[in-house]
Amino acid sequence: MNIKITASYDGTTYCGWQIQPNGITVQETLENAIFKAFNQTVKITGSGRTDSGVHARGQVASFSLDSSIPPEKICKAVNAYLPNDIRVLDSQAVDQDFNALRSAKKKTYSYSFYIAPVEQPLKERYALNLDRLPDIALMKKCADLFVGEHDFKCFNASGGSAKTTVRTVYSIEIELAGGDLVIFVTGNGFLYNMVRTMAGTILAVGNKEKDLETVKTMLKTGDRNLCGRTLPAKGLCLEKVFYQ
Amino acid sequence: MNIKITASYDGTTYCGWQIQPNGITVQETLENAIFKAFNQTVKITGSGRTDSGVHARGQVASFSLDSSIPPEKICKAVNAYLPNDIRVLDSQAVDQDFNALRSAKKKTYSYSFYIAPVEQPLKERYALNLDRLPDIALMKKCADLFVGEHDFKCFNASGGSAKTTVRTVYSIEIELAGGDLVIFVTGNGFLYNMVRTMAGTILAVGNKEKDLETVKTMLKTGDRNLCGRTLPAKGLCLEKVFYQ
Repeated sequence: MNIKITASYDGTTYCGWQIQPNGITVQETLENAIFKAFNQTVKITGSGRTDSGVHARGQVASFSLDSSIPPEKICKAVNAYLPNDIRVLDSQAVDQDFNALRSAKKKTYSYSFYIAPVEQPLKERYALNLDRLPDIALMKKCADLFVGEHDFKCFNASGGSAKTTVRTVYSIEIELAGGDLVIFVTGNGFLYNMVRTMAGTILAVGNKEKDLETVKTMLKTGDRNLCGRTLPAKGLCLEKVFYQ
Repeated sequence: MNIKITASYDGTTYCGWQIQPNGITVQETLENAIFKAFNQTVKITGSGRTDSGVHARGQVASFSLDSSIPPEKICKAVNAYLPNDIRVLDSQAVDQDFNALRSAKKKTYSYSFYIAPVEQPLKERYALNLDRLPDIALMKKCADLFVGEHDFKCFNASGGSAKTTVRTVYSIEIELAGGDLVIFVTGNGFLYNMVRTMAGTILAVGNKEKDLETVKTMLKTGDRNLCGRTLPAKGLCLEKVFYQ
């Protein structure tokens, strides 16, 4: 049967989602747990890669499993063999043509900050410290420039291998609660490092280190030198993947 | 000069606050950082120990330092030599007779839970997973039994060395926000493991595994067998220490 799982992980100690020779990845850890639970070697397909140190609350993956176990019980069976920092939250049987990567319609990522004069050890793992509150209204104006279909060539990091740099951003929400500031970005796909550099650009505008005209020029010309910095992985989290 | 610092730490990888031969402690890590910053061997006194794996948002410590640095700049100097999971949030000069342990009047600890059918990797480090919401009204009724001056002999774990088991609990607040449930306990002092066992007892009542009459008997007789379980360290956090 074709299985769809939703997984959450603390990416701090992983070399990202996708299997690679030098370092432990989330995909590999999941495949090993599935092997231990079902004595079957499976190859799982994620909705996309997450980079080293990036977290997920709702990564989706699919794989083919030969078993008579009720599909909704697969998550529990696999969790028994996973370390604490990865959990399968849900498992279900899906149509044979479902593929977590190819069937994905859109994704939401979050980038989290917290405002405090000194780093807070109990927040550092999942968010980036800002010593003062940026101008949220300016951040929202900057974010609005990215919404819609654009050629995001300016965000195309050197490691990227995308055929086209045109993507559609459906929405960018900026939420401030207590001292926590979160940017939620929903789009049909993202270039390598795109969300981290986009968040860095929105932050630079909020900090008045960059003005909106520069961002417009950056989008128009695709000049990567005009972008804000690529923010560290730890603040980034894959929140949700949307299908049909 | 006599210095008072307020520190926060992620206790996950530490063998608690107090220096001990087998394992790295928060106190030792702070003393090493102070040595590196000021080339002085100091002995710092904490407001009290926190156990292995317990976190702090507002631990207080005092020590004597021979330096002409403005006291409020000590935190920054020390932070430069601390790992990310410990930060000095504040430093100030205090009267010579101030002692972080002896001068402490009361403390607030929190114990955090989160409600979810499966463990959430992004919450697991700082809170205990509950698969369903306990009865909050019952939890509050149980908590009320602990408020006031009582002989908390029932909570006196075998590792404890207190001269008297009488303590005053000033307040217990139970807050539910989203899926996060937090118990805040403020008292003039706590026995070894007292907050964790008290939280475990309140939880057992909320889960209807224990009734209020049993808790009353437990308090009256000091029978430790009637307590709830001692909850794991990771959900416990020293929030604040109060002085004059």
